[in-house]
Amino acid sequence: MPARGVAILGSTGSIGCNTLRVIESLGSKYFRVVALGAGQNVEKLADQICRHQPELVSVETEESAEQLKAELAKRNLTSPRIAMGEPGLVDVATHAKADCVVSGTVGAVGFVPTLRALEAGKRVALANKETLVMAGELMTRAAAKSGAELLPVDSEHNALHQCLRGEKRSEVRRIILTASGGPFRTRDKAAIQSATVAEAMQHPTWNMGAKITIDSATLMNKGLEVIEAHWLFGFGADEISIVVHPESVVHSMIELVDGSVIAQMGVTDMRHAIQYALTYPERYPTGLSSLDLAKLSSLHFEEPDVGRFPCISLAYRALKTGGTMPAAMNAANEEAVQAFIDERISLLDIPMVIERVMGDHRTSAVNNLDAVIEADRGARAAAHSAIKDLARKSRVTNVA
Amino acid sequence: MPARGVAILGSTGSIGCNTLRVIESLGSKYFRVVALGAGQNVEKLADQICRHQPELVSVETEESAEQLKAELAKRNLTSPRIAMGEPGLVDVATHAKADCVVSGTVGAVGFVPTLRALEAGKRVALANKETLVMAGELMTRAAAKSGAELLPVDSEHNALHQCLRGEKRSEVRRIILTASGGPFRTRDKAAIQSATVAEAMQHPTWNMGAKITIDSATLMNKGLEVIEAHWLFGFGADEISIVVHPESVVHSMIELVDGSVIAQMGVTDMRHAIQYALTYPERYPTGLSSLDLAKLSSLHFEEPDVGRFPCISLAYRALKTGGTMPAAMNAANEEAVQAFIDERISLLDIPMVIERVMGDHRTSAVNNLDAVIEADRGARAAAHSAIKDLARKSRVTNVA
Repeated sequence: MPARGVAILGSTGSIGCNTLRVIESLGSKYFRVVALGAGQNVEKLADQICRHQPELVSVETEESAEQLKAELAKRNLTSPRIAMGEPGLVDVATHAKADCVVSGTVGAVGFVPTLRALEAGKRVALANKETLVMAGELMTRAAAKSGAELLPVDSEHNALHQCLRGEKRSEVRRIILTASGGPFRTRDKAAIQSATVAEAMQHPTWNMGAKITIDSATLMNKGLEVIEAHWLFGFGADEISIVVHPESVVHSMIELVDGSVIAQMGVTDMRHAIQYALTYPERYPTGLSSLDLAKLSSLHFEEPDVGRFPCISLAYRALKTGGTMPAAMNAANEEAVQAFIDERISLLDIPMVIERVMGDHRTSAVNNLDAVIEADRGARAAAHSAIKDLARKSRVTNVA
Repeated sequence: MPARGVAILGSTGSIGCNTLRVIESLGSKYFRVVALGAGQNVEKLADQICRHQPELVSVETEESAEQLKAELAKRNLTSPRIAMGEPGLVDVATHAKADCVVSGTVGAVGFVPTLRALEAGKRVALANKETLVMAGELMTRAAAKSGAELLPVDSEHNALHQCLRGEKRSEVRRIILTASGGPFRTRDKAAIQSATVAEAMQHPTWNMGAKITIDSATLMNKGLEVIEAHWLFGFGADEISIVVHPESVVHSMIELVDGSVIAQMGVTDMRHAIQYALTYPERYPTGLSSLDLAKLSSLHFEEPDVGRFPCISLAYRALKTGGTMPAAMNAANEEAVQAFIDERISLLDIPMVIERVMGDHRTSAVNNLDAVIEADRGARAAAHSAIKDLARKSRVTNVA
């Protein structure tokens, strides 16, 4: 079998870099990099071009493209074709020689390129959960139509994929997503209210990007995963549970109709899930360390506290409402998280922004891309105004 | 599909009774009892005949058969055909209407009937682990020849069977048996040496028969399971690990070549495994309670201590030696356990008896039943003499 071609959306981010490490560790016999899509980190992209020699790269703007050319010239490297913006990412995602597309961009930017990859029949290794949250219906429909495979890279969903391998859908009673509980698992509501960005960025078990780390602190990450799981595996809101598991060793579980529970466990290194998504249905050795349960000694489990982490309930509500509601929720969350990172609102303001946006959102069916984009745009505008209100109140409170 | 016929070897024991509860709970649409093999508990057997109306039953002796007839007459029940002894158990195991044979007798008595069931192409739901320990080679060869399925009822092996469903053998790096650690997990060697029968019978998580409970106290149960796992799944001694897990919630695990670990969990009720072995590849609902990890709160894991529990090492050694050695080890263990229950030797004398018998055993190939029976007989004789020596020493010590 010739080496399979891989395209990466978000190559300089944490999923992208880990994907490249996996490909290197597996060796050129199995995979080769054909296209890389990045944002503005041209220095890192130049390093990746040097090492992997893709045929195509894409950057965010014309300015970044010029900078990249300069970087490559500095290193005496021949430049691959350089594309730009969303059309550039779409070119990466649909590159003729790409058998597998790793969708590792953060937030809504990976949405259209990922859809195009599925339409083109590529296997998509999906780390960008917002894609399914926004438009799971369109994505799964496109995959079914073209025969494309959708393999989750999120450790929880990757675990579920592994647990479900030997089982019939009709014999699975529910899926159980594990949640680390984030940095505020044991903190009271007041402590969460006054949390700083630095505190929220202290994820207990996983080392990830900023957006997803804040989502983990509010547990919206788990809410997004509930919706993602629905689209990946076809379970309803009532068939998806969450259990808090601080050690993040059990990556997720399924419960069968006979009461048996199948769990997937592993060390917390996302290269496991990335490699699985690339090589499935085969499994290849990794150079990564094995799980040593005796050394870990104990694993803990507790119910999630929706009182302190209302984002969980908001996500279940969005899933049950359906249509464009999850897209609106996701957009509101992205804006609110950015406002928190910019220190304009508090951590507990995030669910307040989302709730207000969801309350005002008029849900419509997701029949096409425009419906999603429209919902996304509207929700962002509504979120901006909610954020402004909350920021003003907070200033007033601080002054008082 | 018509209801499948079930024959039970050891129907009045704990596996047998639980099998009947499973069959009742599933309903007559799925399974019906066609033959029951018991020992001397004729009262319970009469109850079972009344409830399930088998066509054939078997008891240990002619005396038991007469008692059973009297019991049935007392209840105005028409007697089914009554067979006796090992030939009677073989009749039960090979009953023409039995699709599935549950092998739930304790110790060596189920050996020949189980082999005959496999030769007759029956699905065998195997709880009698000594059968595979004594003659795994004969059993698996017979199953391969007739096309019979061998489904494990031991919770650990049943768990492994579930974990392995979706995986390729070549992609499994090792299997990991969990062990509760028994009642002496946290006790020092002196406390184990002076343990009473009553103390050894206090199993922390499972409610089982006497022999298997003592085996759990010495951890020989886990040793036997290592050998059983070898024959069921084809893993070598170096590919089978043991981890102590006091809560017995994780029933066992497999580790894949990519480092991923798949675990099967559940409440500690053997009806789960029995039902799975009957209904595989289908899964049907059970009326049993679900696993509630949040309520359990924590799970613990530790390395097994072969210093305090030398039976583990003896079992690995027997597996590596192969041939008739595991049969000799098993026979020595059965005799030593009985001597401990009879208060003739101490708990730590059990591995001493086994080690002495194994040291003197001349291993031969397991090409036929006679080789196994010969090894079993020789080892029992050697064990008797070892037990006598130890009992004499112990009396001398006690007097001194």
